[in-house]
Amino acid sequence: MLYRNLVSMDVEESIRANPVDGVVLLCGCDKTTPALVMGACSVDIPAIVVSGGPMLTGHYKGKEIGTSDVWRFNDAIRSGQMSEAELGEAEASMCRSRGHCAVMGTASSMACMVEALGLTLPGNAAIPAADSRRKVLAQYSGLRIVEMVKEDLTPSKVLTRAAFENAIKVNAAIGGSTNFVIHLLAIAGRIGVDLTLEDFDTYSNDIPLLANIQPSGKYFMEDLYYAGGLPAVMKELLGSLNKEAITVTGKSVEVNVGDAECYNRDIVATTANPINPVSGIIVLKGNLCESGAVVKPSAASAHLMKHSGKAVVFEDIDDYKARIDDPNLEVDESSVLVLKNVGPMGYPGMPEVGNMALPKKLLTQGVTDMVRISDGRMSGTGFGTVILHASPEAAAGGNFAVVQNGDIIELDVQNRSLQLKVSQAELDERKKTWKSKAADPGRGYVSLYVRTVEQSHLGADLDFLKGGSGSVVTRDSH
Amino acid sequence: MLYRNLVSMDVEESIRANPVDGVVLLCGCDKTTPALVMGACSVDIPAIVVSGGPMLTGHYKGKEIGTSDVWRFNDAIRSGQMSEAELGEAEASMCRSRGHCAVMGTASSMACMVEALGLTLPGNAAIPAADSRRKVLAQYSGLRIVEMVKEDLTPSKVLTRAAFENAIKVNAAIGGSTNFVIHLLAIAGRIGVDLTLEDFDTYSNDIPLLANIQPSGKYFMEDLYYAGGLPAVMKELLGSLNKEAITVTGKSVEVNVGDAECYNRDIVATTANPINPVSGIIVLKGNLCESGAVVKPSAASAHLMKHSGKAVVFEDIDDYKARIDDPNLEVDESSVLVLKNVGPMGYPGMPEVGNMALPKKLLTQGVTDMVRISDGRMSGTGFGTVILHASPEAAAGGNFAVVQNGDIIELDVQNRSLQLKVSQAELDERKKTWKSKAADPGRGYVSLYVRTVEQSHLGADLDFLKGGSGSVVTRDSH
Amino acid sequence: MLYRNLVSMDVEESIRANPVDGVVLLCGCDKTTPALVMGACSVDIPAIVVSGGPMLTGHYKGKEIGTSDVWRFNDAIRSGQMSEAELGEAEASMCRSRGHCAVMGTASSMACMVEALGLTLPGNAAIPAADSRRKVLAQYSGLRIVEMVKEDLTPSKVLTRAAFENAIKVNAAIGGSTNFVIHLLAIAGRIGVDLTLEDFDTYSNDIPLLANIQPSGKYFMEDLYYAGGLPAVMKELLGSLNKEAITVTGKSVEVNVGDAECYNRDIVATTANPINPVSGIIVLKGNLCESGAVVKPSAASAHLMKHSGKAVVFEDIDDYKARIDDPNLEVDESSVLVLKNVGPMGYPGMPEVGNMALPKKLLTQGVTDMVRISDGRMSGTGFGTVILHASPEAAAGGNFAVVQNGDIIELDVQNRSLQLKVSQAELDERKKTWKSKAADPGRGYVSLYVRTVEQSHLGADLDFLKGGSGSVVTRDSH
Amino acid sequence: MLYRNLVSMDVEESIRANPVDGVVLLCGCDKTTPALVMGACSVDIPAIVVSGGPMLTGHYKGKEIGTSDVWRFNDAIRSGQMSEAELGEAEASMCRSRGHCAVMGTASSMACMVEALGLTLPGNAAIPAADSRRKVLAQYSGLRIVEMVKEDLTPSKVLTRAAFENAIKVNAAIGGSTNFVIHLLAIAGRIGVDLTLEDFDTYSNDIPLLANIQPSGKYFMEDLYYAGGLPAVMKELLGSLNKEAITVTGKSVEVNVGDAECYNRDIVATTANPINPVSGIIVLKGNLCESGAVVKPSAASAHLMKHSGKAVVFEDIDDYKARIDDPNLEVDESSVLVLKNVGPMGYPGMPEVGNMALPKKLLTQGVTDMVRISDGRMSGTGFGTVILHASPEAAAGGNFAVVQNGDIIELDVQNRSLQLKVSQAELDERKKTWKSKAADPGRGYVSLYVRTVEQSHLGADLDFLKGGSGSVVTRDSH
Repeated sequence: MLYRNLVSMDVEESIRANPVDGVVLLCGCDKTTPALVMGACSVDIPAIVVSGGPMLTGHYKGKEIGTSDVWRFNDAIRSGQMSEAELGEAEASMCRSRGHCAVMGTASSMACMVEALGLTLPGNAAIPAADSRRKVLAQYSGLRIVEMVKEDLTPSKVLTRAAFENAIKVNAAIGGSTNFVIHLLAIAGRIGVDLTLEDFDTYSNDIPLLANIQPSGKYFMEDLYYAGGLPAVMKELLGSLNKEAITVTGKSVEVNVGDAECYNRDIVATTANPINPVSGIIVLKGNLCESGAVVKPSAASAHLMKHSGKAVVFEDIDDYKARIDDPNLEVDESSVLVLKNVGPMGYPGMPEVGNMALPKKLLTQGVTDMVRISDGRMSGTGFGTVILHASPEAAAGGNFAVVQNGDIIELDVQNRSLQLKVSQAELDERKKTWKSKAADPGRGYVSLYVRTVEQSHLGADLDFLKGGSGSVVTRDSH
Repeated sequence: MLYRNLVSMDVEESIRANPVDGVVLLCGCDKTTPALVMGACSVDIPAIVVSGGPMLTGHYKGKEIGTSDVWRFNDAIRSGQMSEAELGEAEASMCRSRGHCAVMGTASSMACMVEALGLTLPGNAAIPAADSRRKVLAQYSGLRIVEMVKEDLTPSKVLTRAAFENAIKVNAAIGGSTNFVIHLLAIAGRIGVDLTLEDFDTYSNDIPLLANIQPSGKYFMEDLYYAGGLPAVMKELLGSLNKEAITVTGKSVEVNVGDAECYNRDIVATTANPINPVSGIIVLKGNLCESGAVVKPSAASAHLMKHSGKAVVFEDIDDYKARIDDPNLEVDESSVLVLKNVGPMGYPGMPEVGNMALPKKLLTQGVTDMVRISDGRMSGTGFGTVILHASPEAAAGGNFAVVQNGDIIELDVQNRSLQLKVSQAELDERKKTWKSKAADPGRGYVSLYVRTVEQSHLGADLDFLKGGSGSVVTRDSH
Repeated sequence: MLYRNLVSMDVEESIRANPVDGVVLLCGCDKTTPALVMGACSVDIPAIVVSGGPMLTGHYKGKEIGTSDVWRFNDAIRSGQMSEAELGEAEASMCRSRGHCAVMGTASSMACMVEALGLTLPGNAAIPAADSRRKVLAQYSGLRIVEMVKEDLTPSKVLTRAAFENAIKVNAAIGGSTNFVIHLLAIAGRIGVDLTLEDFDTYSNDIPLLANIQPSGKYFMEDLYYAGGLPAVMKELLGSLNKEAITVTGKSVEVNVGDAECYNRDIVATTANPINPVSGIIVLKGNLCESGAVVKPSAASAHLMKHSGKAVVFEDIDDYKARIDDPNLEVDESSVLVLKNVGPMGYPGMPEVGNMALPKKLLTQGVTDMVRISDGRMSGTGFGTVILHASPEAAAGGNFAVVQNGDIIELDVQNRSLQLKVSQAELDERKKTWKSKAADPGRGYVSLYVRTVEQSHLGADLDFLKGGSGSVVTRDSH
Repeated sequence: MLYRNLVSMDVEESIRANPVDGVVLLCGCDKTTPALVMGACSVDIPAIVVSGGPMLTGHYKGKEIGTSDVWRFNDAIRSGQMSEAELGEAEASMCRSRGHCAVMGTASSMACMVEALGLTLPGNAAIPAADSRRKVLAQYSGLRIVEMVKEDLTPSKVLTRAAFENAIKVNAAIGGSTNFVIHLLAIAGRIGVDLTLEDFDTYSNDIPLLANIQPSGKYFMEDLYYAGGLPAVMKELLGSLNKEAITVTGKSVEVNVGDAECYNRDIVATTANPINPVSGIIVLKGNLCESGAVVKPSAASAHLMKHSGKAVVFEDIDDYKARIDDPNLEVDESSVLVLKNVGPMGYPGMPEVGNMALPKKLLTQGVTDMVRISDGRMSGTGFGTVILHASPEAAAGGNFAVVQNGDIIELDVQNRSLQLKVSQAELDERKKTWKSKAADPGRGYVSLYVRTVEQSHLGADLDFLKGGSGSVVTRDSH
């Protein structure tokens, strides 16, 4: 979020300060996509996105591999099942072409997001970066932006509320990243659409998982492309989408994907026979997260969906690292791990540490999942019963800031509830002695960020960047 | 052959005229590989080859496709089973990245040839052009050439007779192109190794087909790479190879590939259980081809290996096109189709038309193969009982020039024999009225080519380019 | 200043966020040089500057021309002495190569500044952009940064107070731009050197003009290069410089330029026989500019150096444009033109409008200069008795904000005095009804800028960017 | 000539073999210009030339320098007046930008030749390579070739006899290189215009020197550009030119240059007041050069124009180098130096050694010029009473092959006569024991060249490349 917001500011100023009538946004990995779209929205001249595309599927010793295997290789190294030389070859075999991660991590989720929003030509998300057809797509996008300028087809005409609802539904169907929530909220804030955290639950809760791509499934983005790409997914989902939403093609979603074909139902499933009937994002509320928190049910354990346990609290990431493998840590499989101060303000950038590893002593007992709660984020490749984006974050001084070891936490996903079984009076008392750990470094961009970043349930944008200023340069100044 | 020879001359002069101590030869499609190697051999300063690499495997409507499918698509279009729009998409799906044809056509055969000769770092042949590891290979090749200069490791030290024998064996194991014969002969002519057409038979006749790549098999070059690449093939073949042959690594073939692993035996088979026990090139002799002709048995029909039939003769390619589908053409399935004047001199460039399509009236009777003989070449993707490179070519006035309709031709592959059952006296009589059709255009490079090109059994090089002149520039001249 | 500060923030974050040990700053036109240096100072890892270089001297119809001629051409067009076609050709003849303006405007002044500060290899400033030796300089700079990293030769070791004094003296000797003042102050603020506006007067007032380059002289940057470049100027000035100051060469200024040769004394004069004995920047103080204002005496009229006159006040640039040519404007040649609200905050960017054109009715009377005072800037090519950078600016609500038509203003350059002959009581009374015109647009980067920009006498940096944060990334965050 | 001819063959084949309708020929130094034009003529599809342009004028220690100064620096080094370090700096100062030599050497002469022939847009020859207007010219040339294709404006329509006559006249007016003779003859041979060596004398003998450029004058190509470029020269010469000749603009020479302006008469003189009334090429005949020889009178000594002397004969360049400084060499200032075996065939490439240095013992006596005769060429920067291109060359066995020490040679430039005062009977007798030194290396391109190169008076093209073959590819061949 730290650099996403800085880039968005640069992009906005660059678009406005240059004599351009329209802009082709060349996006790549996780943050660049929302950053560029946010900046373009604040100017609102015609814009079209061309993504960089995923890497080719990796092949290592006869097996297909992708970025998620990094974690598996890491374990294999530590356990001596893999040599350093093998790791080197595996890495070269995994990142074997230009492009972003080949699984449905955040980068791929973002590429799907802009296609679902109608900001790209159909098919943009899945074409591998090394495939010649991505250059063809770029060529066509260049031709199209000229027409869009003539038609004055600005982002605000494409990014209606209907488009945002479509993006939420498509993200559910592909098993997209939880980071999608924060980025989409930030974009909505720029274009002036009143999108709330609750909308992510509302619009995704009846959408099944259709795309069989890692980490929710087993294939790779290259396979999704061969199977028909995102248009094949969206066609299957058409009954649930706002079909009439206008896109950068100047045509509706329905026209764009109505004729899409699916070439492999093992990769793009039907709604009648989905990969997983449960998908999307569930938004929790309660006194532990007054403004909300999110959980990705398709990546969570069914038996923990309703759970009550004692909090094992880590004050920050250093505290967690110091104590998690301590044999004396008071923890069992019913405990609820709580990690504070990894939110937008508390840890500038809001790191992807929410799916914290379990205590070694429980791992060795065969425990594979526990309820984990934090105000941070999780990589698009992560999984587990992980509650993320607790808001207000600890650094902002809500109840989450004062949860203590031994407090009872009650999770009820079905009822969207996350409660701390401590009285508000007690919590208020605790707050009297609470001190923020938000380290404003005192100068520079990071200081500006810490002082102005909004909470995650609002998109973690800088407060003074929300909304737009149009494209007019009021005075010329050398 | 027309431009291969011209390029080889340019390459030779460019290497010699520039103040370079070593050279990295960046090769690509069919002709550039032999052309660059030929030129470098005539100068004989340290040289290493980096091939451009094959295209990624094509994917069209859920199926894997490659260049050989062009012919299938062509048939489908003619039969109305495919629309023009589908063809356009299929072509885009087939040529979907930079790189040369993804099957074991001539380009891939050449890339394997230089690796088998020891002119490249191990693994060069199969890495897809779009794969980042090709850039890594190029980087390492650049580092290596510097060392080769210090070691004075010249082409003549690598390209010993042992290396040529290895290349012939490897070409058999991969089911390589018949064009390999002409190009390897030309290279041998430059470096001064006494290689004969007969050697191709001698050194390949006990080598089985190990690589399951189209057109002899069913996979693509990308698959060969995942299965271990050419090193996996060469390791399997090591017992038959000249193991001690030195390569550009400064090490022997055995050291280079001794540790190679195979990750997929469906693609790289063992010698014990090969894809096809028959492979390689068979060299025929007889009064119809005094200097020889070639046939690729793995692509031919077993029942035609010993065959006698009446000749149906086409004087040149235009004659063939005019008459082949004539319902009155006197031809049946036992006939032997003969196409003249498509040799090195007779049709400058020696076109790939030797696998001439069968007469339509026989096709409709279900005939799928016939004995076909010409002085021309065949694409690396072609197949059938096709006798190629008959030498001397018709334009050179050997017996092949005077074969007539109705002459009896006797083929006996087992005994390497191709006989025209006409007395030499009769043939000599016919020659009295024979007139060469070799069209010397009277000026320009084509005229030079026609006047100096050698016969195919010698490699079709220009006679004055054979051998080498070393790297010394005797006098400086502005 | 608007984008200078934004770029400086981006540069700082980019240097820190990337795993680099040293950085080569590729600078070009006016603002990029201070912006990149400011950013690098806030990180303080080894840094070396390579400027883009000036354009080749223009040649139009047999005469040498440069950017300053734009104004002359503009007049010629308006007076009908030049056709549009001729203007087009003249422009093509003026900007005839890559590079920044070929006169000693702000871009060239900045290139000289970084060379004088010791941040570049000797000779960097004057090599034309199209000259091959600029590429050589870049190559050497690349080699040098590697050594600088080994030596840990950081900006803070080069940018001592001694270096800043040298830069001020060199700027005087070359007749550099007034914008130099603001940029050097901003750089000092980042590296933590206590430089004040007064220092510019103190260290330049005994330095004569040595470089005969437009606008102070008559030649171009290309000529300066042929005459020996900035080293020839600095060698001549060596007696006045801090000779021992260490530069990016690892050597002192004296070692760097001690052997410099001058090839043309018409272009680089001696201190004994300078182009102009007066040069540099004079800093005025008084109740009209409590924090100071600047004037460039070599570009001003001697007879106006001590002057008293009635103020003709323009509230902002629009007011000026509306009224300056009004025949009824009450103004005569003794009047003092005052332009408000073009300062850092009042007109985001602080435009170069301080050398406002005289009233047409006085121009026709033959008046060629008048005292002009503003809180804005002037192009490096401008001239006249122009008082710039009055601070605090009008928008900040100092006395300058409430000067009125008819007030008597007294200028005494010799005594560094600029007085408004109005009692402080009266001025305080006026302030009661004064309202700032600073238009905070309410959102976006411009809003941030307006709310945080410092006054020009402090360098117009954003307040939260002053100083540095070092190069350590305290926490890793994806 | 060696590589000029090879390149011309490549260019011809490349143009024909690629599916292009027109071609922009990007030419640079000496040989590339004729090579590309020759190749394009043999195909005869629409073609336009864009030259690379001359380097910027060099500046070294305050003086303007150019390539001709290489020789002066060389002398200065040998005499100890210049250090190696100074030479290094001087070289860097001389070759200070991209581009070819900045004097009127062969490269500049070729650029002028193609402009005079009508093959370029007006102004092409003189724009410096580093000047942005060369890119503009390239852009316009790209636009123009499209129109030329539509108009079918082929080289054969531009390169009429009238155009060749114009080129000869312009070459005289600019003091162009003697190499111009050979290259223009070769181009004429390709396009089928019957141009003879004598034409160079006929059409240049009344043309004065108008361009004051080194080596005939004192300025550089950059100065010629500022003075108006070749159009300014051609406008002055318009009365002598074939004004109606059509050029690649689709317009006549007169229309192209009729409005050209001259901005500096010191650089482009008028015909009324030329730099030198004598210029151009004089063609000599006689029994020493049965097919002709050339001399450039503007570069020769008046007192040697009619001269008789004893031959001092060098059999080849090695013989010359071995004996020229021998104190016992029998030679005085009236001797005639003769150098054999540096012709097209005798020294493949026909080196630029014709202006052989005088014997040291005569130099020390103050002799500055002597009559020198060879069958070789001279650099475009050379000068002296130098008879070049004697044809047939020694290696071809004409009388020049058997001239001996002591033979009397009689030169009479006025009467175009060069006589060997030896009876033909004696010469025939000598030929009986003469043996050619033409070293056919036996293989490779050099062998081909030696066996097929024509004599210099015919343009030194390869015999089988003369004329053209059109653009039709008669048969397609993979």
